Amino acid sequence: MFVFAQLNIARTEEGMYPVSEIHKLNLRSKGLKVNPGDIINSRHTGLIDAIVQIDGCTGSFVSPEGLIITNHHCAFGAVQAVSTAEKDYVKSGFLAMSKAEEIPAKGYSVRIIESYSDVSKEVLASVNDSMAPAERSKAMEMKIKQMVTSAEKEHPGRRAEVSEMFTGKSYMLFLYLYLKDLRAVYVPPRSIGEFGGENDNWMWPRHTGDFAFVRAYVAPDGTPAEYSPGNIPFHPKKYLKVAPEGVQENDPVFILGYPGRTYRHRTSHYMAYEENIRMPYAADLFQWEIAAMENMGKNDHAAAIKLSGRIKGLANAMKNYRGKLTGMKRLGLVEKKREDEKALQDFIEADSKRIKTYGNLLGDIGKIYEEMSSHSEYELTLDYLRQSSTLLSFAFTVYEASRELKKADLDREAAYMDRNFPRLKESLTLSLQNYHEPADKLFLKEMLGRARVLPAGRRISALDSIIGTAGSSGAIEGFLDSAYRTTSLKNEKNLLDALGKSSEYLDQMNDPFIRLAAMLYPSYQELRETRRRREGTLSKLFSLLVDVKQQFQKKDFIPDANSTLRLTFGRIKGYSPSDALNAYPITTLRGIIEKTTGEEPYDTPQKLIDLYKAKNFGRFRHKKLNDVPVALLYDLDTTGGNSGSPLLNAKGEIVGVNFDRAYEATINDYAWSEKYSRSIAVDIRYVLWVTSKFAGADYLLGEMGVRGA
Amino acid sequence: MFVFAQLNIARTEEGMYPVSEIHKLNLRSKGLKVNPGDIINSRHTGLIDAIVQIDGCTGSFVSPEGLIITNHHCAFGAVQAVSTAEKDYVKSGFLAMSKAEEIPAKGYSVRIIESYSDVSKEVLASVNDSMAPAERSKAMEMKIKQMVTSAEKEHPGRRAEVSEMFTGKSYMLFLYLYLKDLRAVYVPPRSIGEFGGENDNWMWPRHTGDFAFVRAYVAPDGTPAEYSPGNIPFHPKKYLKVAPEGVQENDPVFILGYPGRTYRHRTSHYMAYEENIRMPYAADLFQWEIAAMENMGKNDHAAAIKLSGRIKGLANAMKNYRGKLTGMKRLGLVEKKREDEKALQDFIEADSKRIKTYGNLLGDIGKIYEEMSSHSEYELTLDYLRQSSTLLSFAFTVYEASRELKKADLDREAAYMDRNFPRLKESLTLSLQNYHEPADKLFLKEMLGRARVLPAGRRISALDSIIGTAGSSGAIEGFLDSAYRTTSLKNEKNLLDALGKSSEYLDQMNDPFIRLAAMLYPSYQELRETRRRREGTLSKLFSLLVDVKQQFQKKDFIPDANSTLRLTFGRIKGYSPSDALNAYPITTLRGIIEKTTGEEPYDTPQKLIDLYKAKNFGRFRHKKLNDVPVALLYDLDTTGGNSGSPLLNAKGEIVGVNFDRAYEATINDYAWSEKYSRSIAVDIRYVLWVTSKFAGADYLLGEMGVRGA
Repeated sequence: MFVFAQLNIARTEEGMYPVSEIHKLNLRSKGLKVNPGDIINSRHTGLIDAIVQIDGCTGSFVSPEGLIITNHHCAFGAVQAVSTAEKDYVKSGFLAMSKAEEIPAKGYSVRIIESYSDVSKEVLASVNDSMAPAERSKAMEMKIKQMVTSAEKEHPGRRAEVSEMFTGKSYMLFLYLYLKDLRAVYVPPRSIGEFGGENDNWMWPRHTGDFAFVRAYVAPDGTPAEYSPGNIPFHPKKYLKVAPEGVQENDPVFILGYPGRTYRHRTSHYMAYEENIRMPYAADLFQWEIAAMENMGKNDHAAAIKLSGRIKGLANAMKNYRGKLTGMKRLGLVEKKREDEKALQDFIEADSKRIKTYGNLLGDIGKIYEEMSSHSEYELTLDYLRQSSTLLSFAFTVYEASRELKKADLDREAAYMDRNFPRLKESLTLSLQNYHEPADKLFLKEMLGRARVLPAGRRISALDSIIGTAGSSGAIEGFLDSAYRTTSLKNEKNLLDALGKSSEYLDQMNDPFIRLAAMLYPSYQELRETRRRREGTLSKLFSLLVDVKQQFQKKDFIPDANSTLRLTFGRIKGYSPSDALNAYPITTLRGIIEKTTGEEPYDTPQKLIDLYKAKNFGRFRHKKLNDVPVALLYDLDTTGGNSGSPLLNAKGEIVGVNFDRAYEATINDYAWSEKYSRSIAVDIRYVLWVTSKFAGADYLLGEMGVRGA
Repeated sequence: MFVFAQLNIARTEEGMYPVSEIHKLNLRSKGLKVNPGDIINSRHTGLIDAIVQIDGCTGSFVSPEGLIITNHHCAFGAVQAVSTAEKDYVKSGFLAMSKAEEIPAKGYSVRIIESYSDVSKEVLASVNDSMAPAERSKAMEMKIKQMVTSAEKEHPGRRAEVSEMFTGKSYMLFLYLYLKDLRAVYVPPRSIGEFGGENDNWMWPRHTGDFAFVRAYVAPDGTPAEYSPGNIPFHPKKYLKVAPEGVQENDPVFILGYPGRTYRHRTSHYMAYEENIRMPYAADLFQWEIAAMENMGKNDHAAAIKLSGRIKGLANAMKNYRGKLTGMKRLGLVEKKREDEKALQDFIEADSKRIKTYGNLLGDIGKIYEEMSSHSEYELTLDYLRQSSTLLSFAFTVYEASRELKKADLDREAAYMDRNFPRLKESLTLSLQNYHEPADKLFLKEMLGRARVLPAGRRISALDSIIGTAGSSGAIEGFLDSAYRTTSLKNEKNLLDALGKSSEYLDQMNDPFIRLAAMLYPSYQELRETRRRREGTLSKLFSLLVDVKQQFQKKDFIPDANSTLRLTFGRIKGYSPSDALNAYPITTLRGIIEKTTGEEPYDTPQKLIDLYKAKNFGRFRHKKLNDVPVALLYDLDTTGGNSGSPLLNAKGEIVGVNFDRAYEATINDYAWSEKYSRSIAVDIRYVLWVTSKFAGADYLLGEMGVRGA
């Protein structure tokens, strides 16, 4: 019997299944005790009705009163915004002991899936084979903008999205309920929620209490509304049951969430471009920027605070890239992809009909990436020039807005459409809060210096008058000194005032950054068109690629992640991070105490240390480990955007909150690996223990139907 | 039956057993298949006759022709000394394909234990209770010098040492055969022998091929002799059998070697001084010096080479200290020691007779360390002032020699006695080879700067004329510029010429560094006397401490390591370096490939990579791991000086060469821990595989009685 049960359990497998595919899965054969109909059900409610997208993260309802659990790193901005030197909620944590004490989470919103439909035919009808590649891209963009706009008109208070599932092949229209009154309920102190900081980021074993509770509100009549004191808690169609007993090693688990982007269906050409060109360039640049910012913050606490967000973001990306580069090298990924493609090419060439349709397919894809590689110095300089300077990117937005807003809504670049413009405005305000002039100036100087030494034929000629030629450093410094002194974009009022104004108005402003943006604008426009052409070409080619791969491998594929709701399943499972090391999939409080140094990022609150020393584990003690479990490791298939996703046990009850991957699993975005693909959740037992024993918020446990510790 | 067999295996235990204790051990009950008489035997030969001390390391004979195996890091200096830019043996490795091709290992010597005897009574007869502490120290020093000198006179060609086993309590006289014609046979390239470099140092999992072969030679008549082409290989009384089949997890193993220093019998006062004062001071200073040197070497390859040895030495010490500090904190070592001492004090106070003899014992020890703590700023500045500058330490030696050599041999400080003086001279020459002026000057400036800001009452007044007072930096810079410009000690001929000259001669030289040394000399003399007084006091107190501890705990103790031959045993065993991580005790070639980046310290030779890819493991394949084992981990009790020690299987055959400890085991020097104390060897299977498959030196395998791969 036992042996049979074991055999019944299928091997863990790659796969972020879109909602449209869930009904095809035999979940019981994977060890789960739920059926597809328990997850998604058009007539009744399913688990997906409890899942929300909260900005770039995922969250889930855990009470009938709209209580949402997500990651600390997805929600702490809500309390950061209202923190002061006296009331530093990020440092001390924030706990509302009643609904009246909750704080509005400005700028936050949640989306809940309401319906989805396949719109591939409609989207693809907008293009035909006679179109030039760039024209093809534009036609699809326009069609999608039209569909989204009309869907939102038809369903007020909803947000619509058309998501590309397979490039150039399949499209889905999602309609989301969109709630904008979010409030912070419990955000643990940074010393718990960010324990380990950058050191531990992308690492296992992990001891980060990366969770927070927020609550969604609606108007008294139940409709979505902006914040208002009179709003009432949202009553979700479905909320997750909390499983305070947690899970054990080898238990089956699954995740519902919004993974951002993966690139597994791309070819070796793309991987080689990423491995050899873009990621090393970005990782080195970020490393330099981080070091420069850390230096600036060393003896300047105010600067350190302003720069911390940017450092964190860059460090996160850099470590991800370094992890990917290591993983690609270790797996010989490009080489493997090339071998697969060689086999595919052999299959194509074995049949004259296939040769006709697919014979040049891989070669043609390769040509696009060859072009990208040979232009990479020029293109990467342009990309990171704009990205490196907050002021320059402000000026761009302002300048571009003056051109885009003149057009009809549907003709604009998406960011400037009426449905998106308020959010663009909000993002400028947020950026300006962390503006730090010395860093901004240093980075712009660095990028202009890089532009100056670009070889002939690859130069950004628009810059020549400013940067001079190699050897003359004075020109850049002089320009920057004057530009930073005289620009008016550092001032929020001026900045927001300029946004949306006409070209004539901007000309009169005579701002050095806007002038610089105007000078560079044709280069960026040209690059955008180049990319539209490449995308148009690749869109067709990738569509053919999936066709022929399906013929060759005789199976269906799962589309790459694209920020739409996905299901992934597997087991609680350790791994071997390197020769002679084995990682166990459950960490405990002991590890927190071991890591604690008293200094950031290992400055555990004394109360937590005392609770540990007193072995005050309550009902959340793991019997075998004789300790409270803190984090869980499992072989599910996740990526960025899955942050905050509920980790669910076989019965679909929440046992953890997903927040990261192991270092070796950064490679996930390019290839799933049974050996290395491991994701990380904060254990629900730690969540409940902290909330009850540390924070004293047993009322929240009660609301979730869990007895106190 | 099985259960009984398991119970029979004693728990691994702390203990570096001196040769005098080995006969008391029941080795068979520890899982070994040898008896004490197989290890040490005054009538026949024993395993200890195959063990040598090779400078600060251990080695062992592995053939009847005087072939010695030790660590790469213990022997690579032999080929470094004869390397040139064209023939860089350190980089490429060195292999003699016949005895004629071997290279003299200048400056190397080996010592083989010939006899030992307990001389406690004789040594202790030289002191009496009426002596003042410093007088007591001096009397013992003199007695020991006399005994050593007369033993060496009696046994020409031998080296004698009197080693203190328990402070102020027990002493042993060792007589060593002393061989000075050593030759390099096979030293693998640095990319194997130092694989992982500083990154992996003090770390597990490990993949360093830290082994080398040298050969000992004697005069044609079999007596010890300096290098001569006509010398013949030394025929050891005993050599170790090589076990090419290696060991497995949980196999019993033991080590014979020369562990340097441990401090486990010291009290909490000593540990607190180390934890709070000395180690943080030294680790921070070393870290700064390392960073400065790395910076200097960044764009200056010649400087980088000159500084590499010093960087390596400091980095090794710094990482050891940091590891110890982490371990002490994690184990709460000082607190634990305090608790033990409180229990001991309670025991003492329970009996009026004990109170009389031991009542103030712990308090009196504490007073010495209180004094050291309150003088630490002054004393550490003096210590590291001399240590930081090669030129200043040269000047000291030269100046001190002028005073010491005037005295009768036995009255001199040990380094200046006739039996040691040639070695002192040699060490100056070696130091000068790596002299790098900018670093030397920077470090001296730093230490003078630290001296300048010492508080009143703790100042090195002899320096006042040079360093001025805080705030006036000009004085130091001016002094240093002139001193480094005009000193003659940078020149080898001048330096050696000055060494041994009279004070009058030195006066006439008018060298700024010798003048500085002369100015500081009284301060150092005073510090030396202070320390003699403390040692004299502690010598008596520690002797009493061991007495009362024995009464209290009713057991015998093993003395702290003191560079004499010791036995330690245990098992091949992994450990948990941290919460949720488990380390397996055998690493493999796979790990080398995983770590390889192509850049130092992970620049594996292509030939090794090719052998791995071809799975050309020969007979050294580990069946379960399907790979060649590279390094081994075990719970034996080792410390510095055990480097190069043979790791022996139950039958006393060599299965590895000990070379390091795991990071958490740096704490070993202060306290042994069943959880953390783990040492590391290079696996004999890797040694043989590299020697055969990589180097093609099957003749060496033949000489060791091992069939080729």
